[in-house]
Amino acid sequence: MAGKLTVFHAFRSKMNEKLLSKGNLQLKRFFNLDSQVYSDGALPTRTKELMGLVASAVLRCDDCITYHLIRCAEEGVTDEEFFETFNVILIVGGSITIPHLRRAVETLEEIRAQENRAASRKRRNGETGKQGKGEGRKGRVEEWEKRRKEK
Amino acid sequence: MAGKLTVFHAFRSKMNEKLLSKGNLQLKRFFNLDSQVYSDGALPTRTKELMGLVASAVLRCDDCITYHLIRCAEEGVTDEEFFETFNVILIVGGSITIPHLRRAVETLEEIRAQENRAASRKRRNGETGKQGKGEGRKGRVEEWEKRRKEK
Amino acid sequence: MAGKLTVFHAFRSKMNEKLLSKGNLQLKRFFNLDSQVYSDGALPTRTKELMGLVASAVLRCDDCITYHLIRCAEEGVTDEEFFETFNVILIVGGSITIPHLRRAVETLEEIRAQENRAASRKRRNGETGKQGKGEGRKGRVEEWEKRRKEK
Amino acid sequence: MAGKLTVFHAFRSKMNEKLLSKGNLQLKRFFNLDSQVYSDGALPTRTKELMGLVASAVLRCDDCITYHLIRCAEEGVTDEEFFETFNVILIVGGSITIPHLRRAVETLEEIRAQENRAASRKRRNGETGKQGKGEGRKGRVEEWEKRRKEK
Amino acid sequence: MAGKLTVFHAFRSKMNEKLLSKGNLQLKRFFNLDSQVYSDGALPTRTKELMGLVASAVLRCDDCITYHLIRCAEEGVTDEEFFETFNVILIVGGSITIPHLRRAVETLEEIRAQENRAASRKRRNGETGKQGKGEGRKGRVEEWEKRRKEK
Amino acid sequence: MAGKLTVFHAFRSKMNEKLLSKGNLQLKRFFNLDSQVYSDGALPTRTKELMGLVASAVLRCDDCITYHLIRCAEEGVTDEEFFETFNVILIVGGSITIPHLRRAVETLEEIRAQENRAASRKRRNGETGKQGKGEGRKGRVEEWEKRRKEK
Repeated sequence: MAGKLTVFHAFRSKMNEKLLSKGNLQLKRFFNLDSQVYSDGALPTRTKELMGLVASAVLRCDDCITYHLIRCAEEGVTDEEFFETFNVILIVGGSITIPHLRRAVETLEEIRAQENRAASRKRRNGETGKQGKGEGRKGRVEEWEKRRKEK
Repeated sequence: MAGKLTVFHAFRSKMNEKLLSKGNLQLKRFFNLDSQVYSDGALPTRTKELMGLVASAVLRCDDCITYHLIRCAEEGVTDEEFFETFNVILIVGGSITIPHLRRAVETLEEIRAQENRAASRKRRNGETGKQGKGEGRKGRVEEWEKRRKEK
Repeated sequence: MAGKLTVFHAFRSKMNEKLLSKGNLQLKRFFNLDSQVYSDGALPTRTKELMGLVASAVLRCDDCITYHLIRCAEEGVTDEEFFETFNVILIVGGSITIPHLRRAVETLEEIRAQENRAASRKRRNGETGKQGKGEGRKGRVEEWEKRRKEK
Repeated sequence: MAGKLTVFHAFRSKMNEKLLSKGNLQLKRFFNLDSQVYSDGALPTRTKELMGLVASAVLRCDDCITYHLIRCAEEGVTDEEFFETFNVILIVGGSITIPHLRRAVETLEEIRAQENRAASRKRRNGETGKQGKGEGRKGRVEEWEKRRKEK
Repeated sequence: MAGKLTVFHAFRSKMNEKLLSKGNLQLKRFFNLDSQVYSDGALPTRTKELMGLVASAVLRCDDCITYHLIRCAEEGVTDEEFFETFNVILIVGGSITIPHLRRAVETLEEIRAQENRAASRKRRNGETGKQGKGEGRKGRVEEWEKRRKEK
Repeated sequence: MAGKLTVFHAFRSKMNEKLLSKGNLQLKRFFNLDSQVYSDGALPTRTKELMGLVASAVLRCDDCITYHLIRCAEEGVTDEEFFETFNVILIVGGSITIPHLRRAVETLEEIRAQENRAASRKRRNGETGKQGKGEGRKGRVEEWEKRRKEK
């Protein structure tokens, strides 16, 4: 089942590279800007990636949904948080978003399966392996929240 | 300038009432659901209202943007946070969202003016008046964050 | 309150005329086609106008909604039918359609007020005046349904 | 050729089940509401499913189109009625809907093939087999129309 | 009638200024990029502004349509060219774009009226005044076409 | 790799034929109109096909993008011009269009590969073979530009 994610990553990298190598300066600038806006600021990357997920889903773009699901999972978004996000998507965007949510759930399962395989690998290699489902960046987020409050 | 917000609230309440009084059970259920999805859960209301703002803006609905700007401000979203949200909207949704962002900035100014008037009133009445720009619900959010971490 | 409908009709006629007088043959053909597709066929005009209303609402175009509300009312669509249609719109298109439904309810009230004034006028003039709320074309529709079954 | 429909049904059921088992109460409520709005009321299910088809097509969601094509066919919508509906879709939504209409025609062919196989099976089994192309629920609709007029 | 354009310009400048003064670096970069992509390159500004008009119209944003109508007129787009562009918009985007085209025709009339007033003023001041309807930048475009062919 | 284009053409022709053979007069008229609006007029076909590409991309329809990429290439649009067009699409439509641009670049590569194979074939057959990348209709366009200026 990991194939879908692998295919997504492979095609995305290959074609982004082509877009950027053939594209002019303005296209490069747009791509730069596209990664800058999700960086930590007054709002943490985690919240911005969730926003990216919501925007992608109500605009109904499967590839964009897949991308932000992956990024959100890296930012430690839990299944419970994902499903609450799906509710916001569903209520704002309507039943027309349901087919995208079905595919999102499938993608999410694949992401979790990958995370689990990675965690097993780490455990076998004697590493801590404590990073379970969607808890990857939790420490980093709490760090950020602390910093923000101190401001 | 406070007129725009007042007109928005007046029309919204009047017509929602008519929709609900004339509408059937299913319409009422949709409206109920619509407020439930933004309530505190795994994700705080604040984040969900920001998601609502992003969804409204990329789908380009001025009234929905106004509504979520008001709600976000009540949840203590700061100007800096709003402008980072506008960046996500702009990059995902493109320049076609700019006219909506212009109107959003105008609405935001009006919201802040109202907050300031309310704060002055409180100060004159000997109340604490400490609640400045976008800090309304901050205590409540920190409370929520603490509870979440304890889980 | 009748002003909104009057303004709508006036602007619509004036600008359609300009579009058609300045526009080329292809624009005229599109406009012709646009009225042909709603004519009675295997499906009655009434159903097609309801379809037009749904399409306009999920695509969120207030002027198109107003136009199809007027046409549907002429085809005898009742308030109960309108509100069931609003439910379909709401569930497919999501809460982003709510501001349009608010304005639709306002427009519908204005349409009914006009119908009532017309009915009063008729009664005063000794006419039958039996045509009440949204029952204008009912006879015609039943006629059509009968014809369809006989086929 | 029946594969496309079978795949659609299989994926849809599997993922809906997952959405509902993992999703929270609000997601379940949305799904309930989603089936309620198409039930017989002032407007018959048949008309509402046609509305669902139009909404899905102008919002350009292939899976939603497939779903409503299937449901409309179950409600006895004939080819002639489908093609008139496609006209409304095409004129409101523009040429951007054409690729979806191409796929819709392909799906419709598959649906009719299934209906024919089911009808043949019934005939072979000595059943009435009178239910031909898109006439499945005709009796039920007439029943409903009669009831509505009696009101 | 010139009021509509004046109001558009005034609000646009005022709010863009606010967006840029309050906005962060990324918002400024987006705005820069937004003007860069329409500059002369392999394709002339004129063609790109027409593209901007088409994109704005099928995405149905009145303010964006107004902006690109103004820019296209400055680039010397003629009425005949505008109406052929409206045909492309209408066929791709469907009848849902018609209300926007009605308003576009109204805006175009206002633009032409302004051009005529400017031309009269020039003539009165003894200037050449040869720049009539939509011919403003024609020399510049031919210049560009010549350069492109020489490449 | 040429398979994607071949599959596209095969499915498109087959289903258009079915749409037109089963569809009624109005559907045929829409299809006629759809080809008429791209014909040479005050604006050349080339510019109109580029407009069609932009409209398809901001409305995010892969099949429509593929179709207009093919037509633009036939009209002699160069890679540099395509990438400037992609910039306009990207800035107006936002990052949500990126997955479509990725697929567009892939399609464009396939189109160029086909052009190259056709050119090689011609050279082998002793034909001029001068028609390289995207220069197919260049003579015709210059012809048209000359005619337009003479008007």
